[in-house]
Amino acid sequence: VLQISDGTGGKKKVVILGTGWAGASFLRNIDTSLYDVHVVSPRNYFMFTPLLPSVTCGTVEARSIVEPIRNIVRKRGGAFRFWEAECYKIDPTSKKVHCKSGDGTNADANGEFVVDYDYLIVTVGAKPNTFNTPGVAENCHFLKEVEDAQKIRKSVMKCFERAALPNLTDEERKKNVHFVVIGGGPTGVEFAAELHDFVNEDLAKLYPDVKKYVNISVIEAGEHILTMFDKRITHFAEDKFKRTGIDLKTNFKVVKVSDKTITMSNPTTGEIAVPYGLAVWSTGIGTRPIIMDFMKQVGQGKQACASN
Amino acid sequence: VLQISDGTGGKKKVVILGTGWAGASFLRNIDTSLYDVHVVSPRNYFMFTPLLPSVTCGTVEARSIVEPIRNIVRKRGGAFRFWEAECYKIDPTSKKVHCKSGDGTNADANGEFVVDYDYLIVTVGAKPNTFNTPGVAENCHFLKEVEDAQKIRKSVMKCFERAALPNLTDEERKKNVHFVVIGGGPTGVEFAAELHDFVNEDLAKLYPDVKKYVNISVIEAGEHILTMFDKRITHFAEDKFKRTGIDLKTNFKVVKVSDKTITMSNPTTGEIAVPYGLAVWSTGIGTRPIIMDFMKQVGQGKQACASN
Repeated sequence: VLQISDGTGGKKKVVILGTGWAGASFLRNIDTSLYDVHVVSPRNYFMFTPLLPSVTCGTVEARSIVEPIRNIVRKRGGAFRFWEAECYKIDPTSKKVHCKSGDGTNADANGEFVVDYDYLIVTVGAKPNTFNTPGVAENCHFLKEVEDAQKIRKSVMKCFERAALPNLTDEERKKNVHFVVIGGGPTGVEFAAELHDFVNEDLAKLYPDVKKYVNISVIEAGEHILTMFDKRITHFAEDKFKRTGIDLKTNFKVVKVSDKTITMSNPTTGEIAVPYGLAVWSTGIGTRPIIMDFMKQVGQGKQACASN
Repeated sequence: VLQISDGTGGKKKVVILGTGWAGASFLRNIDTSLYDVHVVSPRNYFMFTPLLPSVTCGTVEARSIVEPIRNIVRKRGGAFRFWEAECYKIDPTSKKVHCKSGDGTNADANGEFVVDYDYLIVTVGAKPNTFNTPGVAENCHFLKEVEDAQKIRKSVMKCFERAALPNLTDEERKKNVHFVVIGGGPTGVEFAAELHDFVNEDLAKLYPDVKKYVNISVIEAGEHILTMFDKRITHFAEDKFKRTGIDLKTNFKVVKVSDKTITMSNPTTGEIAVPYGLAVWSTGIGTRPIIMDFMKQVGQGKQACASN
């Protein structure tokens, strides 16, 4: 494993992990005349997350919501270095981060290298949280990265094409265009609304025979959706969903997802299983393993577990 | 397997296989007042192939070069039906085509159905021809479909990011940004030219340290490239390549491709193996198995083999 240590001119070396909101803002503003700055991230662009749900339906093109990090490097006169790699281990004792290049296809190098630092800025963000619900990782879409949105877009079209095939019963058609959003937070609600508009304004014209089978459901474990906002926003969204025909199932907790059905439970109904065509899991975020490990190392293990 | 036979009003039933140039033109022009028209294709859009090489470098966005078949259906007042499925067997004796829906994920149906026809229009096109060269299918990119172009685009960026990593020797950097085009026909030449412009006009600014390692090679088994056109076009292209630094290797036949090297042979040099970062295979097209099978059934087996 190669060791990188090219701090120049006696400047302190600052290593930034991640190119999301925090990482990109930091590197746009840090004074590179005072610090030797290196950025490590598996993603060579910053993404404007609020528009991500719009990419799922083609309202906005993926390249319109990203800014290449190398553009930022260039705007700042090449004053810092960027490496597309994932940091898989932080060693705070020897002040080193262990990194690995994302995909090793056709590369001779094993892709591993070590970067030492004086100051480490950890902005790697979080990962989708499945709460270990069985079948979620295998069968659900997430909506966290650009690739996720592009996959959802393809899947939505596949669902419509499948529902239009000649060899299906009405039940099977319904199943194929039953779109289920699990989690009534901002991501899930935005996606459900975007999909509703896409179906009614665009797809209804292209798939006139399929339109009548479409159903969009939002499943929320709590009593209300968008509980992180003012109550008026919650009520507005719930009313709007009711008027536009989005099926809102509150107080339902999803306990299992198979390739054919989503099983959810509610104190009144018990467990029920509904067939679906596409499911998006958006119940919130969890701590990445590397951060869990780092917090344990610096004595914050219990807090990390509690906040997860 | 469900049998589809919904010819209405005594009209003869025309089934079109494929949505490429021939299929899409035919269905835009056929008189649906005289015929009951059905279209079957695994691709629910027509693609404007001449712009496909531009998608590899992001000059043109993929959605700009496609026209959804369902748009055409709509423009023609819903006068024909489209099914996104692949025809895997033609039965000319009983006048039926056997079809299968592309991806069965989450579908209860096995995706198979049979369509009968009075007239069958076969416009399924061809497939890339590897001439059974070992390792090509596993290691090379093709440039035939929109997905191919999008994959190439991602791979080009990966090559640059890998070549920029800190843990590489100069040799490894060179390898990662050695772009090899196999086949000097229109597709390969267009791609090489497009990539050359992309590298010099855009990527050189974003990867100033990588630029000097980049090499684009075009390998052609014959004496010249673009032999299907007027000789002046061939000479112009070859001169242009020489001036712009694209390495043109004529009289070299590729005999093997591994994940690290491309092996080619020439009467003078014998076999040589060159390391590469990305390879695009564009040596021409071959007959699809379904068409081979169909030609044998109608007694054209030998011709099919000969023309392949």
